[in-house]
Amino acid sequence: MNPPHFTSRSVLDGVLEREFTVDGVPGVLWSPADGSGRAPLVLMAHGGGTHKKHPAMSGRARRLVAGCGCHVAVLDAPGHSGRPRTPHDEREIDLMMRTMAAGEPVGPVVVRYNGHLATRAVPEYRAALDALQLLPEIGADGPVGFFGLNMGTAIGLPLVAAEPRIGAAVLGQFWYDEALAEQAGRITVPVEFAMQWDDEHIPRESGLALFAALGSAEKSLHANSGGHKELPRFEADSAVRFFARQFGTAV
Amino acid sequence: MNPPHFTSRSVLDGVLEREFTVDGVPGVLWSPADGSGRAPLVLMAHGGGTHKKHPAMSGRARRLVAGCGCHVAVLDAPGHSGRPRTPHDEREIDLMMRTMAAGEPVGPVVVRYNGHLATRAVPEYRAALDALQLLPEIGADGPVGFFGLNMGTAIGLPLVAAEPRIGAAVLGQFWYDEALAEQAGRITVPVEFAMQWDDEHIPRESGLALFAALGSAEKSLHANSGGHKELPRFEADSAVRFFARQFGTAV
Repeated sequence: MNPPHFTSRSVLDGVLEREFTVDGVPGVLWSPADGSGRAPLVLMAHGGGTHKKHPAMSGRARRLVAGCGCHVAVLDAPGHSGRPRTPHDEREIDLMMRTMAAGEPVGPVVVRYNGHLATRAVPEYRAALDALQLLPEIGADGPVGFFGLNMGTAIGLPLVAAEPRIGAAVLGQFWYDEALAEQAGRITVPVEFAMQWDDEHIPRESGLALFAALGSAEKSLHANSGGHKELPRFEADSAVRFFARQFGTAV
Repeated sequence: MNPPHFTSRSVLDGVLEREFTVDGVPGVLWSPADGSGRAPLVLMAHGGGTHKKHPAMSGRARRLVAGCGCHVAVLDAPGHSGRPRTPHDEREIDLMMRTMAAGEPVGPVVVRYNGHLATRAVPEYRAALDALQLLPEIGADGPVGFFGLNMGTAIGLPLVAAEPRIGAAVLGQFWYDEALAEQAGRITVPVEFAMQWDDEHIPRESGLALFAALGSAEKSLHANSGGHKELPRFEADSAVRFFARQFGTAV
């Protein structure tokens, strides 16, 4: 195992941004520009159809670096952002588009396809974590968190369930499903879980059931009024405070 | 109408604490000790069996004054903290104690008795608000919030529903009931609502149903793992940020 292969480096507003690859998978690492010594790492996973440097990712990463002093890493998901798509990917994406265009419930298609993507993404995240922990500013025994909503939760549930190095997670905005509930039940670390109370895609009972399925003794549900895309901006700050509490770092 | 009649005055850690009475009802007002100009007011109501200066009240008040720059006022509820009890109060309290001692569900008794107390407390809070708004440091047209959990929510639901001067509320930890749901449905201001996911007294579905009944277009549910008395301390800070967002004051 080698450390990440860095391919770019820039600094903006006190945040060092480095793109990298691990085993050919592209990622990005945001870090305190004035970092000295080791700091915790938050792995993030982006939503469906977006990419590692989508504003939702870079915005959350910058808040985490500033508020928590930690490193934040995101990978491009399989089939996303120019990564190759298999014929299976093409069929599932086509079906998802047609289902949405027809105004039919898209949940079953998204759950199935994102579950498939997660089986490919989880080993990539675990390899990236191996590589990132070789960096002296992260290290092999520091705190690690996970932050992913929507497709990021489809990846996060099996990842956090399988990966003992991850000690805290922010998840949410996904459907209940028996396989996901089984993964959620194996999660025991503290979780903050976001859902939209008036989500037009994810039924309220489905979101509540997924939260209920989490095995964690310490978990918090944040359900806000509004539709699927109306997650309040203040939830990003709440996630920063959650990780700061878990890591014992100042906000 | 006269301003509150102040009966004591002390300063601790930058917070001015003044006890007062309005029409004979005892209250306490916490304010920024270095206050200049007008600041918003948060009315709080305490839980059953406690009083206006219970640590849960003074702790939340000090966080609000420090984090939000606002005034905070609490009244002793009818029948509490030395205020006279009627024979009806005595009978209901006795029934509540016997129900709890027998390990039977206490919800129906608490809902009924707290509903009765609310009919007495709501006019007292409205009169106190009239009086407090005569103070130059509060004023008649500044922002007003309400913060009450448990019995404080039994008082808060009819108070916020009836009182157009209250523009934001933090509520929670109470049972669903048809009369309360009707009051909740008339509330249209932003609400943050706390419940305990594993509450041994308030069934999960009951807490969720009361949140669902709120008529507010902008509302947030914070459901935390743990029992009735295990509301995490960080929810008090969340309430401060909620009021700061609503009032437009810095945290």
